[in-house]
Amino acid sequence: MAEVGEFGLLAALLPSLPSGRDVLLGPGDDCAVVRTRNGRLLLTIDAMVENVHFRRDWLSPTQLGKKAFRINASDIAAMGGLPRWGVLHINAPPQIAAGDVAAISRAAAQAAAHSGACVVGGNLSRASRLAVVLALIGAAPRRVVRRAGARPGDLLYVTGSLGEAALGVRELRRNRAARGPAVRRFREPPLRLRVGTLLARSGVASAMIDVSDGLVQDLGHLCAASRVGARVEIERLPVSRHVRQAGMSLALAGGEDYELLCAVPARRRRRLEGLVAQFGCPFTCIGACVAAPAGVRVVDAHGRIVPVRAAGHDHFGGPTRR
Amino acid sequence: MAEVGEFGLLAALLPSLPSGRDVLLGPGDDCAVVRTRNGRLLLTIDAMVENVHFRRDWLSPTQLGKKAFRINASDIAAMGGLPRWGVLHINAPPQIAAGDVAAISRAAAQAAAHSGACVVGGNLSRASRLAVVLALIGAAPRRVVRRAGARPGDLLYVTGSLGEAALGVRELRRNRAARGPAVRRFREPPLRLRVGTLLARSGVASAMIDVSDGLVQDLGHLCAASRVGARVEIERLPVSRHVRQAGMSLALAGGEDYELLCAVPARRRRRLEGLVAQFGCPFTCIGACVAAPAGVRVVDAHGRIVPVRAAGHDHFGGPTRR
Repeated sequence: MAEVGEFGLLAALLPSLPSGRDVLLGPGDDCAVVRTRNGRLLLTIDAMVENVHFRRDWLSPTQLGKKAFRINASDIAAMGGLPRWGVLHINAPPQIAAGDVAAISRAAAQAAAHSGACVVGGNLSRASRLAVVLALIGAAPRRVVRRAGARPGDLLYVTGSLGEAALGVRELRRNRAARGPAVRRFREPPLRLRVGTLLARSGVASAMIDVSDGLVQDLGHLCAASRVGARVEIERLPVSRHVRQAGMSLALAGGEDYELLCAVPARRRRRLEGLVAQFGCPFTCIGACVAAPAGVRVVDAHGRIVPVRAAGHDHFGGPTRR
Repeated sequence: MAEVGEFGLLAALLPSLPSGRDVLLGPGDDCAVVRTRNGRLLLTIDAMVENVHFRRDWLSPTQLGKKAFRINASDIAAMGGLPRWGVLHINAPPQIAAGDVAAISRAAAQAAAHSGACVVGGNLSRASRLAVVLALIGAAPRRVVRRAGARPGDLLYVTGSLGEAALGVRELRRNRAARGPAVRRFREPPLRLRVGTLLARSGVASAMIDVSDGLVQDLGHLCAASRVGARVEIERLPVSRHVRQAGMSLALAGGEDYELLCAVPARRRRRLEGLVAQFGCPFTCIGACVAAPAGVRVVDAHGRIVPVRAAGHDHFGGPTRR
C-alpha cells in the first residue's frame, strides 16, 4: 500500500461504491448526502489512530474524545450542516485503564452535546493500538455546499489561522512536555459550525472544504472537484508570528488545521461582508480561483511562485487521513 | 482493562452518554433509535479487528468486507429494521496490498447493495493492524422490537442453527486450511432481515436480540433488559450433527452465530405459525421466559441443570465484541 498512498487508493476505491436510491451525493466529498422522507442527512466517519494521528502522551483521554468529535463535525461544517447523532467505536489495547476508555467516551459525548448533537451508541473492541472511530450524522442545510461549484474568479477565503496545529506537533515531537498555544491548538481544533451554516444558508459560498491535510492539498481537492485552478498569495495567509518564524510550509502543508476553506463569487462579496461579523473568527481572503488546469499555485509578494513541498503527510511519515 | 472486561466497561460507560432531543433509544440495545422529521432511524456501529475477530489467513478480503456488513446489519435486523446507508472506515497496515483494501470496500458495498442498502462513504487510516469499522443507518419499523419487553411465560425462539461458526473457528485454529460447512458459516454469517421485519411488523415478538456472543450470554442481555429469567432446553437447540458431536458448549457459548433470538407471548403463537413459512430458515422454540431472578438456566431432557462454561469469549481469549 505504501507506494499507492491513501489518496490514490481512496480515489481508486470510492467510485466502485455503488450509488443507490435516495443517495444524493456519494463518496468523495466531506460528507455523503442522503434523502429521508422529509429531509436530507449528512454522513461522515473518521478515526484517530494511535501512533498515526496521535501519541498517547500527546493527548489526554478527554482531549482525544473531544478531538474525535470535532474532526468529524468539521466535515459536517464543511457542507454547511449541523451534527445531530453519532456512534462511537473504540479499539482499546488490553492494558489501557478502563477509566481512560470511559473518559474518551464521555468527552466525545460532552463535545457532541455542546454542539447540540448526541452520541447515541457505541461499541468496544480489543485491539493492539488505541483507535477512536466516530460516525456522525448531520442535518443538511437546504443547499449543501460541496467541494464542486467554484468558478474561475471566485475569491478564496479561510477561517481562523493556519499552521498552528502542525507547529504544535513539531513541538511535541521535540519535547512531549511542550506547552503553549501551538500545542493547545493541536489538542483542541476549532469547530466552525457557525461559519459553515451561515455560508450555506446565505448562499454566499460556491464551494467549501475543511482544511485537515494542509491548505494546498485540500485546496487541490476543491479545485479538482470544481475543475478550476487556484492562486494563493502567501503573504495573505492568516498565521501567527510563531508559525511565520517556524516556516510557512506549516501553513501550506502542515495539516490538522480544521479550518474552513471556501470560494465566494466576487458578486457576493458585499453579502459576505454583512455576514462576517457573525462568524466569531477571522475570515481571510487568501487568493482566487483561476481557469484550470493551472492547479494550485502559491505566489509571494512579487508574484513569484513559491515551491510547496509534498503536502499532507501525517506525523509519522505516512500519508494522512483523507 | 483486562480485569473489567468489555461488558462491565460498556455498561459503566454507556449510561454516561447523554440522551438528547429526538433520541428515542440511547445506548444499550442492538441499535440506537432517533427521530427525524418524518420517520425514525436505527444507528449502529461495529468493527472487525485483526487478531481479535479474525486472522488474515482465515478470511479473504472479500469475505471480510461482506462479513463486516452482515454483522452490522444483523443488529438492525434484531430491531426489526432494514439497513439503508453505511459509512466504512478501514484501518490498514502499511504492508497490505491496495487491491485487498479495494476488495474489502467493494465487498462491503456489494453486500449492502444486495440488501437494498448503500455504502455512501468511507475513510482510510494507516494502522498497525487491519480493522474494518462500519456504521450503519437503518429504517426503523413502526414498532421497534427491543431487548426489553419479554414477560414470564413468553416462548423463546431462535432462527437457523447455533454453534456452527464457533466450530468453524475451532477448525481454523487447528488447521488454517480447514474447509467445510462450519468454516463457511464462520466466513459468511446469515443475515435474518426478512425474519426481523416480519416479526416486528406482525407485532409477534415481544423482545429480540441477535446472537453474536453466544446464546446464553445474549439471552442474558435480553433477560436483564426485560427483567425476566429464562429456561432453555438443551435438547431443543437447533444444531448440526457436527456441533452436537463437538460439544453443545459451542451452541450455548460459542459466539458468531448472528441468528435472531426472540420472545413470543404464548397467545401470539398462532399468528407466529402463520408467518414461519415466510421466514426462509428454521425457527425453533428453545424454551421460555420465567419470573426473575432465575437468570438463564439450561436444562437437559431430565430437567437437570446443565452447567455452562464462561460464555462469550473471543477467538483469542479475551472478551468479545459486545
